[in-house]
Amino acid sequence: MSRVAYVAGQYLPHRQAAVHIEDRGYQFGDGVYEVIAVTGGHLVDEGRHLARLHRSLTELRINQPMSDSALKIVIREVVRRNGVDTGIVYLQVTRGVAPRDHAFPKAAKPVLVVTSRRSRPPDPRLGREGIAVITIPDIRWQRCDIKSIALVAAVLGKQQAREASAYEAWQVDREGQVTEGTSTNAWIVTADNTVVTRATDHAILNGVTRAAILDIIHREGYRLDERPFTVAEAKAAPEAFLTSTTADLLPIVRIDGAPVADGKPGPLSRKLRDAYFRHAAAAA
Amino acid sequence: MSRVAYVAGQYLPHRQAAVHIEDRGYQFGDGVYEVIAVTGGHLVDEGRHLARLHRSLTELRINQPMSDSALKIVIREVVRRNGVDTGIVYLQVTRGVAPRDHAFPKAAKPVLVVTSRRSRPPDPRLGREGIAVITIPDIRWQRCDIKSIALVAAVLGKQQAREASAYEAWQVDREGQVTEGTSTNAWIVTADNTVVTRATDHAILNGVTRAAILDIIHREGYRLDERPFTVAEAKAAPEAFLTSTTADLLPIVRIDGAPVADGKPGPLSRKLRDAYFRHAAAAA
Repeated sequence: MSRVAYVAGQYLPHRQAAVHIEDRGYQFGDGVYEVIAVTGGHLVDEGRHLARLHRSLTELRINQPMSDSALKIVIREVVRRNGVDTGIVYLQVTRGVAPRDHAFPKAAKPVLVVTSRRSRPPDPRLGREGIAVITIPDIRWQRCDIKSIALVAAVLGKQQAREASAYEAWQVDREGQVTEGTSTNAWIVTADNTVVTRATDHAILNGVTRAAILDIIHREGYRLDERPFTVAEAKAAPEAFLTSTTADLLPIVRIDGAPVADGKPGPLSRKLRDAYFRHAAAAA
Repeated sequence: MSRVAYVAGQYLPHRQAAVHIEDRGYQFGDGVYEVIAVTGGHLVDEGRHLARLHRSLTELRINQPMSDSALKIVIREVVRRNGVDTGIVYLQVTRGVAPRDHAFPKAAKPVLVVTSRRSRPPDPRLGREGIAVITIPDIRWQRCDIKSIALVAAVLGKQQAREASAYEAWQVDREGQVTEGTSTNAWIVTADNTVVTRATDHAILNGVTRAAILDIIHREGYRLDERPFTVAEAKAAPEAFLTSTTADLLPIVRIDGAPVADGKPGPLSRKLRDAYFRHAAAAA
């Protein structure tokens, strides 16, 4: 089955799927995106992803490319044409094509691109054994709550992680507090079994997997504290983990090369991970 | 004459000039650019632009798409095919096309796009009467010395300026000091006739027009102080101006709605502007 992409109204063979060189996504990073997991043929937390897409578009004052009901049809058609049962859908909306000029063009039509690909969830060994993170300064812009495609700082951070044989880089603000990973939210568990994660502000993305984990925490009655934490607190914590649409929940067992507790995934991280998989399998 | 664009090895009709949806420029803002002025058929300060392009590519660890001598041939061919005597050349290099993943792809070939268009220099009235700027918080990333295409913060800032009927928005750091405009460098002249502009660091772009103005200042023996200045100092200054490849040098006569001195372009700004035009006309 050859891959198909939806580009501004047309279903095209993936290899020929192209956008104009004056698309503002290409010249300014002037657009937003979402990645939605597909599990057993259904879209995980689609409603939350579309709500966040709206919010990102509204913050950048880009018009919705189409109604939600139409968008849902396009998403399903792209999943179907690519024969994806387990994988992801990627969608991107830019401000459109216009002669290059920083300010908003008077008459540009938003460009919607939707792709889908089969991809296994992360190697199950990562979930069983846990992963490593490094910490780096957060050099990104001050509106990381907008899921913008202007991701060059995240690219550099993820590359640093890869070169340090780590799965992710935790970004640290000027106050020494962890904001989030380059494509994941950051969590620790304290000695009294309280789950800690930064509250959503302009410094982090309001992660959809983060929200699902918060639901589980509330439902199961675990203690939660939404507040920033420092690198030192994380290194001394009994447990740490990260979440994202593509990583699900992964326990962190090393921070900057030093083991977290005994260097094995913590019990609460494992429970939350299992509960998240039940949620993802059920969420239709 | 219909417009022509160079895209990854081909000269294409502008309307059909396209890049793949998985070009990292489109999905991550993972690329850099330059804008070079064309005046009377010659490229103004081409050497400095190409040197800065190298530097931006090196900082992002993107390979040069071709040798400088080849690049110069492509630039001239695009200018020629578009019949541009006075206008600009735009060039953009991205990390290339690869399946979406934040870290650097193992095997991507940089994509070079070159376009050129006729454009008059800014309305001469702007130079004679001066322009207005507003001031806004600088929310950009912390590597503005890299001329990256991830420009969404600059887009939002320029739009704010336009809606305030201003030409530009000066961005202000957490210490209350002006960094630069969204696409221009920022300057003031103090009461003792010293020209002041921020020294190049990670917070601003090393402007090519800025460098040319510095040359003029040194040659003419004007006093110069490369240091940051606050909004308050700018508002109290006898003169202010901005520089960029497309704006040349424009005197600033209003900051946040209040007149600079008597609200007319200052004498030193006018002298530097005239000297810059002589430089641009001569620089072959």
